[in-house]
Amino acid sequence: MSEAAKTLEGWYCLHDFRSIDWTTWKLMPSDARENAISEFRQFLTKLDATQESKTGSHSFYSIVGQKADFMLMILRPTMEELNVIENEFNKLKIAEFTIPAYSYVSVVELSNYLSSDEDPYANPQIRARLYPELPKAQHVCFYPMDKRRQGEDNWYMLPMKDRGSLMRSHGMIGRQYAGLVKQVITGSVGFDDYEWGVTLYSDDVLQFKKLIYEMRFDEVSARYAEFGSFFVGNLLTDEKFAQMMHVN
Amino acid sequence: MSEAAKTLEGWYCLHDFRSIDWTTWKLMPSDARENAISEFRQFLTKLDATQESKTGSHSFYSIVGQKADFMLMILRPTMEELNVIENEFNKLKIAEFTIPAYSYVSVVELSNYLSSDEDPYANPQIRARLYPELPKAQHVCFYPMDKRRQGEDNWYMLPMKDRGSLMRSHGMIGRQYAGLVKQVITGSVGFDDYEWGVTLYSDDVLQFKKLIYEMRFDEVSARYAEFGSFFVGNLLTDEKFAQMMHVN
Amino acid sequence: MSEAAKTLEGWYCLHDFRSIDWTTWKLMPSDARENAISEFRQFLTKLDATQESKTGSHSFYSIVGQKADFMLMILRPTMEELNVIENEFNKLKIAEFTIPAYSYVSVVELSNYLSSDEDPYANPQIRARLYPELPKAQHVCFYPMDKRRQGEDNWYMLPMKDRGSLMRSHGMIGRQYAGLVKQVITGSVGFDDYEWGVTLYSDDVLQFKKLIYEMRFDEVSARYAEFGSFFVGNLLTDEKFAQMMHVN
Amino acid sequence: MSEAAKTLEGWYCLHDFRSIDWTTWKLMPSDARENAISEFRQFLTKLDATQESKTGSHSFYSIVGQKADFMLMILRPTMEELNVIENEFNKLKIAEFTIPAYSYVSVVELSNYLSSDEDPYANPQIRARLYPELPKAQHVCFYPMDKRRQGEDNWYMLPMKDRGSLMRSHGMIGRQYAGLVKQVITGSVGFDDYEWGVTLYSDDVLQFKKLIYEMRFDEVSARYAEFGSFFVGNLLTDEKFAQMMHVN
Amino acid sequence: MSEAAKTLEGWYCLHDFRSIDWTTWKLMPSDARENAISEFRQFLTKLDATQESKTGSHSFYSIVGQKADFMLMILRPTMEELNVIENEFNKLKIAEFTIPAYSYVSVVELSNYLSSDEDPYANPQIRARLYPELPKAQHVCFYPMDKRRQGEDNWYMLPMKDRGSLMRSHGMIGRQYAGLVKQVITGSVGFDDYEWGVTLYSDDVLQFKKLIYEMRFDEVSARYAEFGSFFVGNLLTDEKFAQMMHVN
Repeated sequence: MSEAAKTLEGWYCLHDFRSIDWTTWKLMPSDARENAISEFRQFLTKLDATQESKTGSHSFYSIVGQKADFMLMILRPTMEELNVIENEFNKLKIAEFTIPAYSYVSVVELSNYLSSDEDPYANPQIRARLYPELPKAQHVCFYPMDKRRQGEDNWYMLPMKDRGSLMRSHGMIGRQYAGLVKQVITGSVGFDDYEWGVTLYSDDVLQFKKLIYEMRFDEVSARYAEFGSFFVGNLLTDEKFAQMMHVN
Repeated sequence: MSEAAKTLEGWYCLHDFRSIDWTTWKLMPSDARENAISEFRQFLTKLDATQESKTGSHSFYSIVGQKADFMLMILRPTMEELNVIENEFNKLKIAEFTIPAYSYVSVVELSNYLSSDEDPYANPQIRARLYPELPKAQHVCFYPMDKRRQGEDNWYMLPMKDRGSLMRSHGMIGRQYAGLVKQVITGSVGFDDYEWGVTLYSDDVLQFKKLIYEMRFDEVSARYAEFGSFFVGNLLTDEKFAQMMHVN
Repeated sequence: MSEAAKTLEGWYCLHDFRSIDWTTWKLMPSDARENAISEFRQFLTKLDATQESKTGSHSFYSIVGQKADFMLMILRPTMEELNVIENEFNKLKIAEFTIPAYSYVSVVELSNYLSSDEDPYANPQIRARLYPELPKAQHVCFYPMDKRRQGEDNWYMLPMKDRGSLMRSHGMIGRQYAGLVKQVITGSVGFDDYEWGVTLYSDDVLQFKKLIYEMRFDEVSARYAEFGSFFVGNLLTDEKFAQMMHVN
Repeated sequence: MSEAAKTLEGWYCLHDFRSIDWTTWKLMPSDARENAISEFRQFLTKLDATQESKTGSHSFYSIVGQKADFMLMILRPTMEELNVIENEFNKLKIAEFTIPAYSYVSVVELSNYLSSDEDPYANPQIRARLYPELPKAQHVCFYPMDKRRQGEDNWYMLPMKDRGSLMRSHGMIGRQYAGLVKQVITGSVGFDDYEWGVTLYSDDVLQFKKLIYEMRFDEVSARYAEFGSFFVGNLLTDEKFAQMMHVN
Repeated sequence: MSEAAKTLEGWYCLHDFRSIDWTTWKLMPSDARENAISEFRQFLTKLDATQESKTGSHSFYSIVGQKADFMLMILRPTMEELNVIENEFNKLKIAEFTIPAYSYVSVVELSNYLSSDEDPYANPQIRARLYPELPKAQHVCFYPMDKRRQGEDNWYMLPMKDRGSLMRSHGMIGRQYAGLVKQVITGSVGFDDYEWGVTLYSDDVLQFKKLIYEMRFDEVSARYAEFGSFFVGNLLTDEKFAQMMHVN
């Protein structure tokens, strides 16, 4: 049996994708729409307060194309809190004009490279990555993925040493994009249908394509990655969201 | 032909996942909602009585993310009783505000390690596992799975001896989580689309991820497991369920 | 080119799975529900008459879990009659409260082991199996399946002699369940998405699992079978159906 | 690079499968139903006129099982005409009581065996097959298919000579069914999700199964065919269609 | 690790496929339908203005078969603009009578063959291809595709030299169709579920089939291509669209 990689886990994570039911939204009287938006803003304000108190974080993006209209990504210390927030959203007026499109349940995950006599959860740099404030970059990219277990291409049958060296060279590519792309890796084994969720943030949406394409030629992706759906979107500020929902 | 593993079977099992139709639920007058919840509680009370009389068991959990809002898992001595309970639920008022999300039909299953001259169904320890009272842990994890039959990775073509030794080392990992994670294995060959259902219980939701991830590096999972969807959730007490369904 | 197995064909077969739309059913006034049930009973009575006249057969079972609520399996001498019965059902009042869940089109099929100078269709034992009265056992299990054509595991590239000897040892397993499980094999090449439908009947639902699991270790299943969805259910007598549809 | 097979193309083809929404159809007053049927008949009469003028052809069949209730297969000289007919159908009253179930876009295709100094499109026998009047046999069978490109079983990597000899032996099987089964092959590379559509016609529905099953043991199917869904149905004359749609 | 191909990127691209909800469209009063069409025309006129100012481009086609009724393909300098246009469309009256059918998010992509000391983005020929005015040919064909990563057929594990020579021979086929078929390649790694979108334009719809079929025998397609769904359609002029939407 191969040895499992050591991992560190931080906040639990829910990616919640919704489509807008434009037809019923447009049927609403204008002031009812305003009230629904304003109630939703209060909900976001509450999330902001949690973020300021460093007991969670979230980000809010539109999604391009028909897969969804927006994504709310939530980080919280417990799985129960994710459930509570999900239900709170569902009880908002605006939720009645949305259709569930996709969701992903996971937990912020880091590989543990520290020596065993140090407590990684006490290390401030590691804590900052396990309990991050999510970037407010102009663009987001999300996709779930597995490591392949297929015939000769079985990641989980590789010796740990080989996996380690493959991952190091893979990480080198990522490092070339430092400053351009921020990534949050969340583990989802036992929580959702793939093994990881990858959330990328950038002010230049093209960097997502360049980074992922370059990585695809690396053996870790080329031979061992299985990808789910890709979602790409744009930052939703209060103003952008108001514009998006505004109906003449 | 390889020899089939000997199995023991206990109670029949239905995992019933439902999503809430929040929009129509919110349209209901507040007292009608209360009546629906109270009728559902009577239904649960009846299930509790069966559990107390040791003629069945059940557990009730919320599900995180959009796959479902809650799961009711039911154990009963016969397949007919599962059908009756399913229909009883469908006739409840609250069912009109739920949408079927997923279900799984199986039977509690144990591998039979006893010598052939002992009747395993008379063994009290085995009976306790075949006809269990389901744990009321804080969290649940459910997933269906198959043993792979693909090219060189064909579980069902392995000699029984090899399967036995692979399963033993696989079981060793599980044993390290004794006290942290309880598992109920249910067999579903001939009953549903995968060969087994795995239901895990823990007060620490992270242990699901750690256990399943560690097992994935074991040859039994690495080469021979095919997984269906994963569902993770939180215990629904009367109070938690009331909060979940409460609308201002 | 491998030689195709010789087959005999009997009555055409439609498996028609339906889910009940409980919400609209419950909205109906009680007497309208009674009328719909009574009209459906007349439809079943007509089917019974056909069965008594040996010009067809049918069976009617509930299905456990969310895949469907009931299955009506129909055997008739022509494909047109299946279509007529399907449309008759659709025109019943009760059909308005059902949602199509799955269906399967096939024809009763036997492998032909008789010497070529005998007309198998004149043999009474063979006729009884080609034009059977379907069992009224307590439980049913249905699944469609293919023989695999994948890389080294390609059933259709095997010499007929090898297929024959593999099938004989496969049949030996089935014979151990004689008296416990009755099976009806229907061929569906050119009629539906898999190559065969398998319908099993038993008074002990556990025997489905035991039989199919034991067969899975046999090379015919282990290397060469691809399975579709599995449906399991309970016999619906007039009384059981009335109970199932009854709403307080 | 392997050499592509030479093909000849005739009329464009749309297979349009629809399910009937029986519940709303039954809600219509009887005379409104009659009007809708009569309007649809006028539409079919127009198609008949085109067929008589040899500027197109069509066939109309019921489909057995839940995949669809009927199929209208249309041949026309241009892709635009298919689009026009599709839209004409959608604007009929009866279309409001149908649900799109499946469709397939293709073009009648023949392999070109003539010497290169002859213009195949001037050959009357070839013209009759490129611009055929579709048979009005009692039964139809439709399925889309690909040639496999998988590991060792890659049709498109075979030398043309090998493909040619494989196809010739494959064609021999088909020829044994001459007089029993008529086939129309339509190519769909670039037009729909599979590479070909196969439409079979016969007065004996069992011949579809016998032909396709026998072919499955031939290397072309055994190693190189990937099949989509299979649809089987019965000829819809005016009278049969009236019966089908008639509600008491 | 293999070296990634160098790419140049131009305008962002959204393919937006919609089905018409004919039943509700027909329910609208005739003048309301006219208003909806006229409002949609204003929207198209705005898109035309952008195209004339060379700050974007678009094309508008009907789709044959049930996959969709029309496709609007939009090119813009930023991902945000695609989102804005998508939302603008959703707020049109006509959008209430359409159902999202499929969409694809990508960016115009060219392989970079220029020497490294030249700025390709300053080259007018390259600019014309990165920021193209989309053809107004009679027909369109769209499909997404991946390069395969499967066992021995793993594009991303090939040395760059081999990929280059394979692509050159592949390009030779395309060049034979110069003047007959125009193609726009858009990259979608990180943006959507496949790696590329291919949009072909031709006045002769048969050329799509001939080109793609011929390419399928080339090793790049035969061994290394995985295709998504294919969509084919006809140019929608104002007049054609008016005819399509017209209801008597």
